[in-house]
Amino acid sequence: MKTFRIALIGFGNVGRAFARMLARKREYIEETFGVSPQITSVATRRWGGLVCPEGIGEDLIGIQDPESGWEDRLQRLFDPGLDAMDVIKAGEYDVMIELTPINIMTGQPATDHVRTALEMGKHAITANKGPIAWAYRPLRDLARKQGVCFLYEATVMDGTPVYNLSRENLMGCRITEVSGIFNATTNFILTQMEKGVTFEDAVEEGRRQGFVEADPSMDIDGWDAAAKLTALMNVLMDAQIRPDQIQRTGIGHITIGDIEEAAAQGKRIKLLCRGRLVYGKPVGTVKPVPVDRDSLPAIMDATSSYVTIDTDLMGATTVIEEPFEPEIDHTAYGVLSDVLRILKEEKN
Amino acid sequence: MKTFRIALIGFGNVGRAFARMLARKREYIEETFGVSPQITSVATRRWGGLVCPEGIGEDLIGIQDPESGWEDRLQRLFDPGLDAMDVIKAGEYDVMIELTPINIMTGQPATDHVRTALEMGKHAITANKGPIAWAYRPLRDLARKQGVCFLYEATVMDGTPVYNLSRENLMGCRITEVSGIFNATTNFILTQMEKGVTFEDAVEEGRRQGFVEADPSMDIDGWDAAAKLTALMNVLMDAQIRPDQIQRTGIGHITIGDIEEAAAQGKRIKLLCRGRLVYGKPVGTVKPVPVDRDSLPAIMDATSSYVTIDTDLMGATTVIEEPFEPEIDHTAYGVLSDVLRILKEEKN
Repeated sequence: MKTFRIALIGFGNVGRAFARMLARKREYIEETFGVSPQITSVATRRWGGLVCPEGIGEDLIGIQDPESGWEDRLQRLFDPGLDAMDVIKAGEYDVMIELTPINIMTGQPATDHVRTALEMGKHAITANKGPIAWAYRPLRDLARKQGVCFLYEATVMDGTPVYNLSRENLMGCRITEVSGIFNATTNFILTQMEKGVTFEDAVEEGRRQGFVEADPSMDIDGWDAAAKLTALMNVLMDAQIRPDQIQRTGIGHITIGDIEEAAAQGKRIKLLCRGRLVYGKPVGTVKPVPVDRDSLPAIMDATSSYVTIDTDLMGATTVIEEPFEPEIDHTAYGVLSDVLRILKEEKN
Repeated sequence: MKTFRIALIGFGNVGRAFARMLARKREYIEETFGVSPQITSVATRRWGGLVCPEGIGEDLIGIQDPESGWEDRLQRLFDPGLDAMDVIKAGEYDVMIELTPINIMTGQPATDHVRTALEMGKHAITANKGPIAWAYRPLRDLARKQGVCFLYEATVMDGTPVYNLSRENLMGCRITEVSGIFNATTNFILTQMEKGVTFEDAVEEGRRQGFVEADPSMDIDGWDAAAKLTALMNVLMDAQIRPDQIQRTGIGHITIGDIEEAAAQGKRIKLLCRGRLVYGKPVGTVKPVPVDRDSLPAIMDATSSYVTIDTDLMGATTVIEEPFEPEIDHTAYGVLSDVLRILKEEKN
């Protein structure tokens, strides 16, 4: 059976969950697509790089209990002298999966990683929204020129099929607006504050529960939502907009008093995103808005999110993500679904 | 340019809306797929059949004002001696689109129409859920054997991509449960009753607004919802279940008193559908249930509907349809999206 070789650039929680999910669905993939997926390259920030053209065995890559000494055995295989770009340039893979932490202000180094892989004629997948928010069109055009796939389903709402829905299922429709709640951290904080918890305590509680990052400023200031809105507008509406062009208001200034005032009027405050074309010019906004208690945004639970896509032929279609497993698996599924899409394209 | 020939079996509101939509998107289709779509066969109950291998011009098929005498000119072209099956057997088409009124109790004659077209090696699309509810598996297997497409996106939630979402976007996932609100008529009646309108007056008001059919008993007794649930379970879970095997309770017995009692507990009554496998056996239920005011089913407006798809890898994904145009265009888009999918498959 032909091998389909995978490079993981970044090997944190999502990369490990992806490796486990790949092992779990190996039989399905082999039966459905007639290829055997193998992780052949890995780049990490801490350990350096690993290039293993025959494939890194599943016993080493991700299915084990973290307590079993597995990390130590894996780490010894890495070459501290190889960085991410070295691993990418080694070219021992069919698809490069970009999983490094995002820099929302620049989209780097993820954009360079994707560009380099595409220039080498490899498929590229990114779970990092930087490249889509900052360089979607040139990367899309490069992929087309090279005759390879460039996919990014996990960048917005994890594995929930937002881009693929638009690409595969709203064929022939012109998308006129995208809107929704895209950021779980701010949604969690606002929900906690409704229970009378202070902003600071809500952040702390979110950290404990794993929803909120050590430095949540990118979420709180609306940058994460703005980057996701930019990504959606660039892909779905060909908007050619950047995150710093979004009209952005965060939730840092919201007080329990604001929330109580909204509640007195039967409303809840939610961080809403909206992108549309106004006389052909892309306009994106991220801001906290009081919404009616029985409206869709109001009922989004702490870590749920949704996107509504307005079209000319089909009106509005809404997709909701309700994570009941830890969010991280949803992101890994988004990456896996992109891998399966490439295998399907290759099979056709 | 190559012609792609279309047969419309049934030519009511959906067929006419489809013809208008096809005219509107002609340029897009020609540019994207390199084929020119032509309606070459039409069967109607009132006028008989029309088979016109060169294509029935757009000036005649659907884009005109109904007041312009267009119907009279069109009607004269029909042969009252040709019935639907004659038109299907004439074979002057690449895809047969089944748009006749549904018989929920038998799935006929739609199932025979689809089977005959597939046996002739033609693609088949149905907006009529009868064939999916009663004969999904044999029709699917026949289409595979013949190497043609059998598609049915419009059968549940109009053009909202429910089947295509599962097929294209939840690849690799095992679907463990489907649930939601599938019937707009009952949702409208229950919403009206919350305003203190009696059941009978709500039905009458729905008729006036065009949501409720002359004989709404199939909706009120839960048969329409049961047929849609069956269709989803058969396609998404390979359940091999029939509409008469669904545990079905309608809303005919619901009183304003019941609704007020629910409201006093902060609840609204909604006709919920749920299908799952219990120890491998398919179990489907349709019944009115009191749900919390701030839950997803509760906030579904009169004619909105939703489906939640539970999976092993991705948790729950929900899709909402919110018709802002008259519902009928959404159904036509569902049919058009199936046509575009076939054109995409043929292009690959």
